[in-house]
Amino acid sequence: MTAMTTIIRSQGRAPDALRPVRLTRHYTKHAEGSVLIEFGDTKVLCTASIEERVPPHKKGSGEGWVTAEYGMLPRATHSRSDREAARGKQTGRTQEIQRLIGRSMRSVFDLATLGERTLQLDCDVIQADGGTRTAAITGAWVAAHDAVSTLLARGAIGRSPLRDAVAAVSVGIVQGVPLLDLEYTEDAACGTDMNVVMTGAGGFVEIQGTAEGAPFSRAEMDALLALADKGIRELLAAQRQALGL
Amino acid sequence: MTAMTTIIRSQGRAPDALRPVRLTRHYTKHAEGSVLIEFGDTKVLCTASIEERVPPHKKGSGEGWVTAEYGMLPRATHSRSDREAARGKQTGRTQEIQRLIGRSMRSVFDLATLGERTLQLDCDVIQADGGTRTAAITGAWVAAHDAVSTLLARGAIGRSPLRDAVAAVSVGIVQGVPLLDLEYTEDAACGTDMNVVMTGAGGFVEIQGTAEGAPFSRAEMDALLALADKGIRELLAAQRQALGL
Amino acid sequence: MTAMTTIIRSQGRAPDALRPVRLTRHYTKHAEGSVLIEFGDTKVLCTASIEERVPPHKKGSGEGWVTAEYGMLPRATHSRSDREAARGKQTGRTQEIQRLIGRSMRSVFDLATLGERTLQLDCDVIQADGGTRTAAITGAWVAAHDAVSTLLARGAIGRSPLRDAVAAVSVGIVQGVPLLDLEYTEDAACGTDMNVVMTGAGGFVEIQGTAEGAPFSRAEMDALLALADKGIRELLAAQRQALGL
Amino acid sequence: MTAMTTIIRSQGRAPDALRPVRLTRHYTKHAEGSVLIEFGDTKVLCTASIEERVPPHKKGSGEGWVTAEYGMLPRATHSRSDREAARGKQTGRTQEIQRLIGRSMRSVFDLATLGERTLQLDCDVIQADGGTRTAAITGAWVAAHDAVSTLLARGAIGRSPLRDAVAAVSVGIVQGVPLLDLEYTEDAACGTDMNVVMTGAGGFVEIQGTAEGAPFSRAEMDALLALADKGIRELLAAQRQALGL
Amino acid sequence: MTAMTTIIRSQGRAPDALRPVRLTRHYTKHAEGSVLIEFGDTKVLCTASIEERVPPHKKGSGEGWVTAEYGMLPRATHSRSDREAARGKQTGRTQEIQRLIGRSMRSVFDLATLGERTLQLDCDVIQADGGTRTAAITGAWVAAHDAVSTLLARGAIGRSPLRDAVAAVSVGIVQGVPLLDLEYTEDAACGTDMNVVMTGAGGFVEIQGTAEGAPFSRAEMDALLALADKGIRELLAAQRQALGL
Amino acid sequence: MTAMTTIIRSQGRAPDALRPVRLTRHYTKHAEGSVLIEFGDTKVLCTASIEERVPPHKKGSGEGWVTAEYGMLPRATHSRSDREAARGKQTGRTQEIQRLIGRSMRSVFDLATLGERTLQLDCDVIQADGGTRTAAITGAWVAAHDAVSTLLARGAIGRSPLRDAVAAVSVGIVQGVPLLDLEYTEDAACGTDMNVVMTGAGGFVEIQGTAEGAPFSRAEMDALLALADKGIRELLAAQRQALGL
Repeated sequence: MTAMTTIIRSQGRAPDALRPVRLTRHYTKHAEGSVLIEFGDTKVLCTASIEERVPPHKKGSGEGWVTAEYGMLPRATHSRSDREAARGKQTGRTQEIQRLIGRSMRSVFDLATLGERTLQLDCDVIQADGGTRTAAITGAWVAAHDAVSTLLARGAIGRSPLRDAVAAVSVGIVQGVPLLDLEYTEDAACGTDMNVVMTGAGGFVEIQGTAEGAPFSRAEMDALLALADKGIRELLAAQRQALGL
Repeated sequence: MTAMTTIIRSQGRAPDALRPVRLTRHYTKHAEGSVLIEFGDTKVLCTASIEERVPPHKKGSGEGWVTAEYGMLPRATHSRSDREAARGKQTGRTQEIQRLIGRSMRSVFDLATLGERTLQLDCDVIQADGGTRTAAITGAWVAAHDAVSTLLARGAIGRSPLRDAVAAVSVGIVQGVPLLDLEYTEDAACGTDMNVVMTGAGGFVEIQGTAEGAPFSRAEMDALLALADKGIRELLAAQRQALGL
Repeated sequence: MTAMTTIIRSQGRAPDALRPVRLTRHYTKHAEGSVLIEFGDTKVLCTASIEERVPPHKKGSGEGWVTAEYGMLPRATHSRSDREAARGKQTGRTQEIQRLIGRSMRSVFDLATLGERTLQLDCDVIQADGGTRTAAITGAWVAAHDAVSTLLARGAIGRSPLRDAVAAVSVGIVQGVPLLDLEYTEDAACGTDMNVVMTGAGGFVEIQGTAEGAPFSRAEMDALLALADKGIRELLAAQRQALGL
Repeated sequence: MTAMTTIIRSQGRAPDALRPVRLTRHYTKHAEGSVLIEFGDTKVLCTASIEERVPPHKKGSGEGWVTAEYGMLPRATHSRSDREAARGKQTGRTQEIQRLIGRSMRSVFDLATLGERTLQLDCDVIQADGGTRTAAITGAWVAAHDAVSTLLARGAIGRSPLRDAVAAVSVGIVQGVPLLDLEYTEDAACGTDMNVVMTGAGGFVEIQGTAEGAPFSRAEMDALLALADKGIRELLAAQRQALGL
Repeated sequence: MTAMTTIIRSQGRAPDALRPVRLTRHYTKHAEGSVLIEFGDTKVLCTASIEERVPPHKKGSGEGWVTAEYGMLPRATHSRSDREAARGKQTGRTQEIQRLIGRSMRSVFDLATLGERTLQLDCDVIQADGGTRTAAITGAWVAAHDAVSTLLARGAIGRSPLRDAVAAVSVGIVQGVPLLDLEYTEDAACGTDMNVVMTGAGGFVEIQGTAEGAPFSRAEMDALLALADKGIRELLAAQRQALGL
Repeated sequence: MTAMTTIIRSQGRAPDALRPVRLTRHYTKHAEGSVLIEFGDTKVLCTASIEERVPPHKKGSGEGWVTAEYGMLPRATHSRSDREAARGKQTGRTQEIQRLIGRSMRSVFDLATLGERTLQLDCDVIQADGGTRTAAITGAWVAAHDAVSTLLARGAIGRSPLRDAVAAVSVGIVQGVPLLDLEYTEDAACGTDMNVVMTGAGGFVEIQGTAEGAPFSRAEMDALLALADKGIRELLAAQRQALGL
């Protein structure tokens, strides 16, 4: 990794800068939590739904469940992709992402405090420009927080089952330069791509790094983790600001 | 049908009044046409995608094809419904609606002028409050118009394959009173429910009337058609205004 | 619509004439109701099965359920169509038709009087020559009537849950001429196609009109509804005669 | 096997007697061959369709293909069974039967003489009372013969690709007594059940014997094969008579 | 069938000789029974799993259930075949085989003595060289025996529900010569192919004979059954030896 | 992470020790590469198949493709899991793993040198005791090497498309102690679980770390990566030894 290459990012963005982040709460009216999150041109609608039932493996356990589904509108992307409902199955990529979102959310939930109910998160990509899964995690947490507030307001639970915040960002190496929060064209050109999920307390929940081209070195990995740490701190601040915390 | 009953509609709406209609073009950036249409709290994102291929039954015919798919985000509705992609198939209702949208669009398209390419319309309900299929048809036509303009601008076609506009509205009888543009609570209480699709020239493209409770009479049907005719004229005007025609 | 065109129909049929209608009760021996209905060369076997259980949404309600499925033998049609069981899913058309049959039957059933049991109607097309869905509705009602008689004879119910009869016919405009009960070649040439479902008392249960070519006018629609009314009266008489009512 | 037990069969049928066999050709009008075959109360509609294409493994081979599909109407049986098209897949039993029918038909076809086209047999059970698969094979051969005659009449082929006839019957042991052509109640009570497929020349094409209860002995098997041989000779005669050969 | 043809089999095997049979018990560690069976180069792993539940049709009956599933690793065969899990369905061949294995096992089980539990047999082909279904049956019985011993040792049942042993072999006619235990190249060249399942007491459980080319005569069938009888006796001895009985 | 806890591993294994690794080449006879890899009681059969075709996105590119599928025999695990082929779809976990194996293999392949053919890797778990995906990657590379040797020996390619070796191992933190190569009981008790894929040259191909319980710190991550590095070096040596390199 030689820092001599100069990468020109769109909007004159610095290598260690996030795209503009926007969180719009109460984006739709029916869900207990509903947040549109934007990372630049990436727009994901995250809804949190409370269902007074749990999946079989939690029945009678006194504990609740938190799970997530992910989808992309067919024309969220540059060229249209097949509608998964019409094809009759979700792609491996979709399943991988929704499992990641679910694990990330559960990492900060106390399921016993939640009680025997399910918090179902739906992350639907309205427009994609890279980083949809990290935007989804970051937005889903805010939607989950709103749903928890609804439960508290209803008196359904006595205290919040949320133990911490969680947010996520992508980082990657493009032409030897570590970049924060890749947009689509950067992601496509990317040698190494890493998604990092961290809590408010600074712990790692998930690290998923993939060498798309050449393998990456330990030094590159350290640089990427430092970038991710910086970006996630800013996202955690944006979450708190959106929620007025 | 005795008109003596007085129905109080939300927002003090008159029996023959549409909900506020809003059309936002270029709602997302990738699609050749992208329109968010709102009928009150019903919000449907309609995108039009041009694909330079046709389905097998049109190959070598010199003609193009226009088709539609419809979906609803899981929490677009009051209580969450299953994600069709996760269930692995589309419901009968979804298929019925997307077939209706496709036929409505094709009724105003000259497929030979379109040339051997496909115009794919995707209508995804972001928030549902009754009338999603009629909003989808009305919005899809605007998205289709934008996609056609793109083709004209590219020089891919010499003249527009659109022969006319098309718009749709629902009408129904609630407690004996014919109402225009039903919202969800009205639809649920509705004795008779009718979806009407008409062209700019005032011709009928589709009429789908269903007695949910008691059968309906010829007189009731006439009243409903008159209401639909009024509403569709207003929707056609809204389409023209949105397009600056 | 200029009535000057003269349409020559097969068998010298008048524009407002039904094809020969034949209803054969007890066509197969196992079902509680089993009727072969023929509209000319269209032959549909309608069976009614009583099942002493209800779907989840009716459990514990004290009410029963009436539902329908529709199928077509692969070589019922001019050229062979794929077997839906082998393809692994029903087409949108099939689902649309079976939903229509189910709604039509339920419109004349008092589900509370039926009690917590299901009346399952199966309409299978043995030979198709246009009008399969309207023949199915007309025949299914007779099969349902036989199944209800079985329940009454068994003492399972004290009075009939049938509030009225229901029958259906197709009408359409071919070369400007409104025709009753379209056969396949007429349907294929048809500008406008309408399926109408009416009760014995003359109320409308369903109207589904589609402009296949040019949109249709209000005057054309009125002409079609008048034809449908005439045809359905004759079908209702045929049902009564078959049942000896 | 002690022959002292006396079995009373319905209609006073002898242990070695077939049920009345009826073959109705041209039962439906579209297919190149269409035969309703009845073995007593078992009724199977067998259609033969000619398609001018072959599956991938025969493309360019100069040879044709003969294949079969099998289905049962939901209420062909005493209690209603699920519709396979609605369940989204065929049962193992259905697949086993249609593979058996296909192999049986191919055993008497010269695929090279057929030329690069497919003969598709559809065997649909209208009413079931035991022996549906053997009735299907026996009827399908007559339908195939009619389809071949159509090809000969059209001049599509110069001579018949049929090398022989083929027919099938079930045999079984009920309470120690070997019986020919089991009906449903016999089949259900049956200790051993065997389906035998033979050609006009008397060769075996398929033998499928299953001990439902106790294993069967070589002596029992010999008795069953003798019965099958007798029954199939009579079925072959019925086929010839139906075809006027 | 003229015996003058001389068939040279691999390894100098005689027409009436089995390939070397090897049974390895406890091949994997988790299952209650786990047997690798080898018929020459055909290798099938048979596991028997005890599950303390029964399918719906056995609930509350006091009886247990025995069932089987069959699979083939994609590259068990000479050229790779599609993975059924990836295709999303099992082939007809797979379903036919697993139904055969299940029936064969049930023929020697006393389900009442087994009690309300399921014995699930999984037969997975690691390497295929002909005869996979007969090897599966022969090995599955040994795995079932080990699972039964586990139940007896646990005191879950007081006596064995196994009434007898069961084993299977394939026989066929190649160039007019009846051969025992066909390997793949022989199977492919085979005119007639028969799978025979017999019990320890010498009774027939299943006979499935198919003429791949010319029909087969009664004399040929007798020769094949004699060969099968000889082979199965040897397989039953190998089972006893493996179990130390 | 306090290192004061003492973890007793099975077989007296040290925290930084691999389980015994065994690689058996030519385990089955049909595949171009066939390797049974054992990590202690985890046993995975990895086959490499060469197919002289490429998927659509590579057609005409002059490049080949390398892809992987993963499966687990139903009773590879402590309690039986459903057969994916019978359920009709692969789980999200299966898809995630097979995508990981495929990316890992492609990271060391020069697809242009491979030429327009596909190398299909099948990794089937015969027995599971933790680490199945890392064993699969490590074994698949050896199978791929054998398949490449086959291509070289056939003269199909002039030089090897393999640029490097690749191997993988799991690491995790159990009760505060970082452990190498987790077996099942350790994996189940594990706070943090990480799968690491590295090349022969020491570069990272994939890092997938997940906090199952509490989030993990940067220091913990560093400790895990050091363990993984040690373990992968040993696995690379085992691969070379197995291949005689």
